[in-house]
Amino acid sequence: MEFTAEQKDYMRRALLLAEKARGFTEPNPLVGAVIVKDGAIVGEGYHHKAGEPHAEINAISAARNKTRGASMYVTLEPCAHYGKTPPCANAVVRAGIKEVFIALEDPNPKVDGRGIRILEEAGIAVHTGLMRREAIAQNRVFLTNQIKKRAFVALKSAQTIDGRIGPADGRPLIITGEEARRRGHFLRRDCGAMLIGVRTALKDDPSLNIRYDIDHPPDRPVRIVIDPQMRLPLTGKIWNGTKEPVLIYTLSDVSSSLRRKIEGMGGSIVSLPHENGVIDPLRLTVDLLERGICGVLVEGGAHTLTRFLEAGVWDEYHCFVAPKFLGTDGINVFDRPLKETLALNVSVSSELCGEDLHITYKNHSGVESCLPESLRKRDPSAESGVIHLVRR
Amino acid sequence: MEFTAEQKDYMRRALLLAEKARGFTEPNPLVGAVIVKDGAIVGEGYHHKAGEPHAEINAISAARNKTRGASMYVTLEPCAHYGKTPPCANAVVRAGIKEVFIALEDPNPKVDGRGIRILEEAGIAVHTGLMRREAIAQNRVFLTNQIKKRAFVALKSAQTIDGRIGPADGRPLIITGEEARRRGHFLRRDCGAMLIGVRTALKDDPSLNIRYDIDHPPDRPVRIVIDPQMRLPLTGKIWNGTKEPVLIYTLSDVSSSLRRKIEGMGGSIVSLPHENGVIDPLRLTVDLLERGICGVLVEGGAHTLTRFLEAGVWDEYHCFVAPKFLGTDGINVFDRPLKETLALNVSVSSELCGEDLHITYKNHSGVESCLPESLRKRDPSAESGVIHLVRR
Repeated sequence: MEFTAEQKDYMRRALLLAEKARGFTEPNPLVGAVIVKDGAIVGEGYHHKAGEPHAEINAISAARNKTRGASMYVTLEPCAHYGKTPPCANAVVRAGIKEVFIALEDPNPKVDGRGIRILEEAGIAVHTGLMRREAIAQNRVFLTNQIKKRAFVALKSAQTIDGRIGPADGRPLIITGEEARRRGHFLRRDCGAMLIGVRTALKDDPSLNIRYDIDHPPDRPVRIVIDPQMRLPLTGKIWNGTKEPVLIYTLSDVSSSLRRKIEGMGGSIVSLPHENGVIDPLRLTVDLLERGICGVLVEGGAHTLTRFLEAGVWDEYHCFVAPKFLGTDGINVFDRPLKETLALNVSVSSELCGEDLHITYKNHSGVESCLPESLRKRDPSAESGVIHLVRR
Repeated sequence: MEFTAEQKDYMRRALLLAEKARGFTEPNPLVGAVIVKDGAIVGEGYHHKAGEPHAEINAISAARNKTRGASMYVTLEPCAHYGKTPPCANAVVRAGIKEVFIALEDPNPKVDGRGIRILEEAGIAVHTGLMRREAIAQNRVFLTNQIKKRAFVALKSAQTIDGRIGPADGRPLIITGEEARRRGHFLRRDCGAMLIGVRTALKDDPSLNIRYDIDHPPDRPVRIVIDPQMRLPLTGKIWNGTKEPVLIYTLSDVSSSLRRKIEGMGGSIVSLPHENGVIDPLRLTVDLLERGICGVLVEGGAHTLTRFLEAGVWDEYHCFVAPKFLGTDGINVFDRPLKETLALNVSVSSELCGEDLHITYKNHSGVESCLPESLRKRDPSAESGVIHLVRR
């Protein structure tokens, strides 16, 4: 079906509403809804956080008594199951909506077409695929969780033109400018968790918090350290008393007294099985999702980034490049020799970020290409309207 | 003065006309002219190559008898001196033009305001600065020649995300894709000369020609090799019989028989004075301009790029980044250790180029900031219209 410019405008509005809750809906998707009657918006809403009403319900409430005979634009297929809230599809039927535009079908096996069937069986005209591409991009964390059964993985590096992330002597050196650092903090919030290796924790003693007055849930982002041998001291800035939990992945046997002590400080220890003495990125991200941590920003250092890159366990790579050189004795962003070129199968985009360049590599094995056959068949459409979905 | 959208459109047309001769006007600037009467273009033209008529003359010829009382839009101040052709300012007066819009004043000391004075003294209304920023960008080679008294220097690297330009073992490896290589050949044409170090010549045996059916003058681009010890063999692909001249910069004493032999093969040898045993990039680029070579694309390898970067003798740096890693044993784009971070004072832009990213760093010490005081004072205006001036 061809959609009109007006229909796209309404769905764009629904996508922008959904975006308002970025970082707050975990483990739920971002969803926005707009109700239109006689060529005007009579109600709109979005899902604010898990456990609270869904977007469709908020939009219906806002429209009060004007829903009968109206059209609804919703970014994700209305749910058909009782979760923390009753199914939305039934509420849409009860509200007397006569036509529903859906950007993206819900691959959640509890929904997966049943929401649409409830609407259609009630005589509602349902149109899917309006701005589907943008809807997929918006919910890449949720879709990755559903399809890959692991946390969404974003990598981040701040480097020079010659691929260096710091000087050889390990002294702290800020590579990128203020604007790039600010954007890095937004990425922490958007992902819901951040991860570093223990070497970086020992070297830099980072506090891993969110600055720049960026709104975030009190228990997010989770701060994760990969620490196979439990070398992380209990005196670092990461134990600075803020509420965001600390999660340590280790291969070591941890004494129950140390475990209790760390738990008392707001931390948790996860012991993973040995895997040639290293922690497997895939196993780790599967475990994260099982703990309700839906996304993670892997911030380094080089050793940890290289592990995730080599394992192919990543969905987006945010590469901030400062217009600088550090020379051959700087620390490489990719920390080991390679027999063969490691070529990323990605799409690339870039934009200026202060004095630096923010390059985004999206893994082609990401959700866009992994959607279930049923979704891919239904025209992974060519909506060309690009909207900037990141709140800043 | 505020300019109207219509006036900007005419000047944009003049800039696009000028662009048609990119790579062919050396040592002259690119210039385009449009003549408008009663709201319609009645004549237009551009400067095709040195020795041929200037843009204004071509536009006046094209307008035939319709120039009287018309307005002219010209991208550079009309000349006021007898060069290979008579002064254009006088021809504009004779044509009865009543109003002239000039994008950029000519810093050439032979012109430098005198063209404008001739027009004004004849009672013509002259308006300068319409799309001046775009005009400066278009003639950055010419302006660099005029202001810095050396050839315009563009650097180029094709590298991985981790800043590597090839594998350690020196085997040939193509880093970037077809589209980036094609753009590299356009850069060769646009600069009028390309330059490599002798190490690269020995390792890769490049022919340094222009492929992809890109139109270029028969004697351009010049192929330049920095070869302090005269190690370049006379059997390489660079001596493949094509007409573009070869220029070798050396520190060695060259026997007259070798010199004659190389001249017989279409080459020239330039002996520069010693400078701690290395060739000084500034001295080289001053010499290039004295030989009528107005721009040069420095293509590498790492050693040569590093020399130009460290010396600060460059105006633009085209960095093509492939979505790949080569690891710590690859060859670094910047080939030596640095005690301090080398920070470039630049503005940055980027665009996709096939599967690669084309990042352009423009040196802030380039012509934009080096224009004579007289030019900078006259409102280095804020024309926001961006036009893509590269013919592809």
